[in-house]
Amino acid sequence: MNIIDHLKWRYATKKFNPSKLLSDEKLQTIKEAFNLTATSFGLQTVSLVVVSDKNKRSRLVEHSYHQQQVLDASHLLVICIQDDISESDVDELFDSVADLRQTPHNILEPYRKDLKVMMQNMSKSERQEWSVKQAYIALGNLMTVCAVERIDACPMEGFVPEKYDELLNLKERNLKSVLLLPIGYRSEDDKFARFKKVRKTIDDAVISL
Amino acid sequence: MNIIDHLKWRYATKKFNPSKLLSDEKLQTIKEAFNLTATSFGLQTVSLVVVSDKNKRSRLVEHSYHQQQVLDASHLLVICIQDDISESDVDELFDSVADLRQTPHNILEPYRKDLKVMMQNMSKSERQEWSVKQAYIALGNLMTVCAVERIDACPMEGFVPEKYDELLNLKERNLKSVLLLPIGYRSEDDKFARFKKVRKTIDDAVISL
Repeated sequence: MNIIDHLKWRYATKKFNPSKLLSDEKLQTIKEAFNLTATSFGLQTVSLVVVSDKNKRSRLVEHSYHQQQVLDASHLLVICIQDDISESDVDELFDSVADLRQTPHNILEPYRKDLKVMMQNMSKSERQEWSVKQAYIALGNLMTVCAVERIDACPMEGFVPEKYDELLNLKERNLKSVLLLPIGYRSEDDKFARFKKVRKTIDDAVISL
Repeated sequence: MNIIDHLKWRYATKKFNPSKLLSDEKLQTIKEAFNLTATSFGLQTVSLVVVSDKNKRSRLVEHSYHQQQVLDASHLLVICIQDDISESDVDELFDSVADLRQTPHNILEPYRKDLKVMMQNMSKSERQEWSVKQAYIALGNLMTVCAVERIDACPMEGFVPEKYDELLNLKERNLKSVLLLPIGYRSEDDKFARFKKVRKTIDDAVISL
């Protein structure tokens, strides 16, 4: 099976089989894949919240435009950003690089300083927007990883982040919810699974220069 | 080779082998994978520009903070957004759905109307920001596809979009450049290939509820 076949197999699953759960191994693959997502400067200002608790999820459905996938999927992934980015986040990254790669201090310091200045020159909302973009990279990565692993998924922007933050106590963790990805296995009667994929032609979507 | 091994193999390639080119088959895989990227509502307000022309690319280096990957990679991918989203974009999507899936008019019309209203209620810059997020999904997808296909890549936000738009005549095509992804094959002496990957621990990056 090549990667294009995997991507063609993928679709936004509207109806999950609630009794078919992901194995611990599959779940571990998803967590590792999330953590391996590339982020700008490697700063990793995104976190993944994996919600298996059905009681919590049943309370989230009404704040997700009543989309039942949030409850019925095997697990609900909530991709979050840090509320803000501080100097200590930059320091943690560079300390890790120095430690792991034994990169000399004099080489790393200018980069450390530049990144701090860059972050300082943004407003808090700009820093949040910057992190949100990283959340979308993670979504793109995870959808493809799910396809390769034959895990069904449904990317969702349509929910009330403030309610999620409240009901999942994300504020206490200094996190803000950005994107949802219920994952699991499709219900056999999800009619969306049989719909033809609608896409532009390659000639419309891609320009060669 | 499992997906995690592929993701671990991937790194932001700083030095490409300029004489090792992607086959037509690999390039076709990248184009198809881009076109299969999930986008919000399936609206596909993103385009991929594939630049092979070395003359054009040599003029782009100075507008890319002198990052030589732009020139040395086999191909330079420029992920772009449409300058704006119009009613006719929404109509094209729903006409395609109706045509391809034979979905009855009365089922599609409310969704068509809602999406038009949603787009009208955003300002032009909000519509652009919305499209930019889709560009990041495409980036996340493409990086993973490249890893699976053993194609090296270097995601780049650091360039001057206005200069790219000008030098690649993107304005004429109603496009704006958002992200770069030079792709090809690493140079054997790219020291970054041997650096250990720096990541948070899974326990730091992932929360289970």
